[in-house]
Amino acid sequence: MAFDIAVLTTGDELLNGDLADTNTGSIAAALSRHGYRLRCSLSVPDQEKEIIAALCYLRQHVQAVIVTGGLGSTSDDLTARAAARATGQALAINEQALAMVQRWFTARNRQMEPSNQRQALLPIEALPLPNPLGTAPGFRLRETNCELFFLPGVPSEMQAMFEQSVLPMLQQLHPPGAPLKQRSFKLFGLAEPKIDRMIPYSRLPQGINVAFALDYPLVQVKLRAGGEDADTRLDQAEALLIEVLGDYLMAKNGETAEGNVGKLLVAAGLTLSLAESCTGGLIASLLTSQPGASAFLERGAVTYADSAKLDWLQVPLPILQQHGAVSDPCARAMAIGLRRAADTDLALAVTGIAGPDGGTEEKPVGTVFISLASSNGVHVKGYRFNGNREKIQRMSAYMALEWLRRFAVRQLED
Amino acid sequence: MAFDIAVLTTGDELLNGDLADTNTGSIAAALSRHGYRLRCSLSVPDQEKEIIAALCYLRQHVQAVIVTGGLGSTSDDLTARAAARATGQALAINEQALAMVQRWFTARNRQMEPSNQRQALLPIEALPLPNPLGTAPGFRLRETNCELFFLPGVPSEMQAMFEQSVLPMLQQLHPPGAPLKQRSFKLFGLAEPKIDRMIPYSRLPQGINVAFALDYPLVQVKLRAGGEDADTRLDQAEALLIEVLGDYLMAKNGETAEGNVGKLLVAAGLTLSLAESCTGGLIASLLTSQPGASAFLERGAVTYADSAKLDWLQVPLPILQQHGAVSDPCARAMAIGLRRAADTDLALAVTGIAGPDGGTEEKPVGTVFISLASSNGVHVKGYRFNGNREKIQRMSAYMALEWLRRFAVRQLED
Repeated sequence: MAFDIAVLTTGDELLNGDLADTNTGSIAAALSRHGYRLRCSLSVPDQEKEIIAALCYLRQHVQAVIVTGGLGSTSDDLTARAAARATGQALAINEQALAMVQRWFTARNRQMEPSNQRQALLPIEALPLPNPLGTAPGFRLRETNCELFFLPGVPSEMQAMFEQSVLPMLQQLHPPGAPLKQRSFKLFGLAEPKIDRMIPYSRLPQGINVAFALDYPLVQVKLRAGGEDADTRLDQAEALLIEVLGDYLMAKNGETAEGNVGKLLVAAGLTLSLAESCTGGLIASLLTSQPGASAFLERGAVTYADSAKLDWLQVPLPILQQHGAVSDPCARAMAIGLRRAADTDLALAVTGIAGPDGGTEEKPVGTVFISLASSNGVHVKGYRFNGNREKIQRMSAYMALEWLRRFAVRQLED
Repeated sequence: MAFDIAVLTTGDELLNGDLADTNTGSIAAALSRHGYRLRCSLSVPDQEKEIIAALCYLRQHVQAVIVTGGLGSTSDDLTARAAARATGQALAINEQALAMVQRWFTARNRQMEPSNQRQALLPIEALPLPNPLGTAPGFRLRETNCELFFLPGVPSEMQAMFEQSVLPMLQQLHPPGAPLKQRSFKLFGLAEPKIDRMIPYSRLPQGINVAFALDYPLVQVKLRAGGEDADTRLDQAEALLIEVLGDYLMAKNGETAEGNVGKLLVAAGLTLSLAESCTGGLIASLLTSQPGASAFLERGAVTYADSAKLDWLQVPLPILQQHGAVSDPCARAMAIGLRRAADTDLALAVTGIAGPDGGTEEKPVGTVFISLASSNGVHVKGYRFNGNREKIQRMSAYMALEWLRRFAVRQLED
């Protein structure tokens, strides 16, 4: 028999754009970690009739509803009243809940505000749930065919009470299924439809769910499976995916693309220096967002003005005069000069036009040159990237990271 | 007559904790900006029957539903089929939609993938909506008593299509109410409770709603008001807020902190160079994420290794030997050497320990020195920031931007 769970979040701020709802996401993650399935989530404003309507709808469709928000001490906290109406119960001061509120204040040598009395005014059949982090007790209502759990909207309080009270109660109500196991893959250089066509669906073990998510310019592919031998089947599916897509794989599961590039450079014993023009420090910033970047990154330069290219990177003036800063020869000269200055195994240079201005007929916005200097010589390539400034900068940065990844991988293979 | 709107987001990733839904929030914000009211939002997995059930429920309760997600070209994109079932229509290739998809590829000299044909397979009565940023056309279905709008789940595409297609159509369907007017303020250097205590609530004009949001390390304060004289009251409220908090104000309304720092430097006629150690290029990356950074940013250095500090920044070796790279004297020497090398009005240097490793008894993780060299001399200050690597890097970067903002403001006042 199915055991479906729904989340109902309440609060005007969730529907007028003031606040993004994070509670649904954290409950969803906690549920799937423990083998439960969130069937749907709903958000309604702080209005009694909206909350009532939502509760009535949800309890006809799922076996458990987790409600967050509206348990505070102010006038727009209406959830308890709505819960009473929706279940045909009267409201009364719940002595147990009142004791919880009082304990919170006495524990902090503070006087309980009269308004906090409201927080103990619950439907008569409510079972109060303790709140270790705040004044608002939660509560549970047991309806035929549906269990209702009410928690505060403050994320930290909600999460603590979910783990401490709701989860154990869910586990008593219905033994969780084997939690869905998961594998995820961050791919670069292929669009979603292309990836989808390359996935050998027919050869995947049965019961493997494939999902896509975009973290531009990376495409994330997720494999999910439940049941006894989920891990075995996922191992097979992962092997198949790597067989066909491994060449585009920048990170797996918990890893990040930038973190892996760093690890690969360290493993290959390669030091790196960077010269960034149109990416303006984004590549350095990505690599140094990961701990331990100092193990391979020697230095980086954001060379916006020509003087910086002439001075720090020793780009010959004639190259800038004849070809301009956004050109194959300039990218090449930047990498060569940088490698000499920094004395690193690798020197990577990026120069381009991120826009929105600065484009020309011959060199439109999105024109980007990447150059990599190593003991093998210098490699340069020109690109035309699409999109706005942010997309062009991100695509340029990840393309540069991909160059580094491939170089380090080749190095390790030799 | 009421005109209520609902948002329906689809996608397994929204219900298993993989991805936080940002579309509901951005649609909610756009709707209230334009005087519409979001009555509720609902999320369901990528399952045809769930999407159908949600559509059937919502169209009985609201006059317009905005659906996001599931319009891609992959096997888990089921929204069009669900929409057809829910409205009792057949699916057919929509020639107009197919032309849109084809145009997208031809505009980029690329071959259309066969799988993209799926994206033109729409309910027969669907009116396709152009997608300026991607391959997936949206569509509109006109039901009695309810209008259904279907948009892709990719936030940038969804937002563009909402503004370009959905909003004008909503305005034709139902004249918006007087939209809530809004003012927003990005503050740096004060925690939310402190700001809350400093806001002169008693002196605010009536009917002004105050909301807070955190974009670490910036705190955003939003003022909202409706009705005839909303602008007048908001002007008064804004004046009051700036009177008490103006000193901490980095950006207002549509502005960004990094964009404003750039504008201020240009207005003050100041050129800038950067030397970043623990921030690893984040400051340069923030400033260059804004168009026109080349007007003031001459160059930046990410000086991880000492050799880079010695070479590009001319930091005297004894300083590194006696005080170490994370020290007041080193930060000072970095700024002085950088200003000489780059020949800019301002040279800003940051050196510190972002962690998680590298901390010591004397210099724990979070120890950061910022130095600014100008024609007035050199200013240095040491900080102890809290939090993980990301928080320490972001706090350091915004503190540095705040130094630049204050310097430029003083310059303009003189």
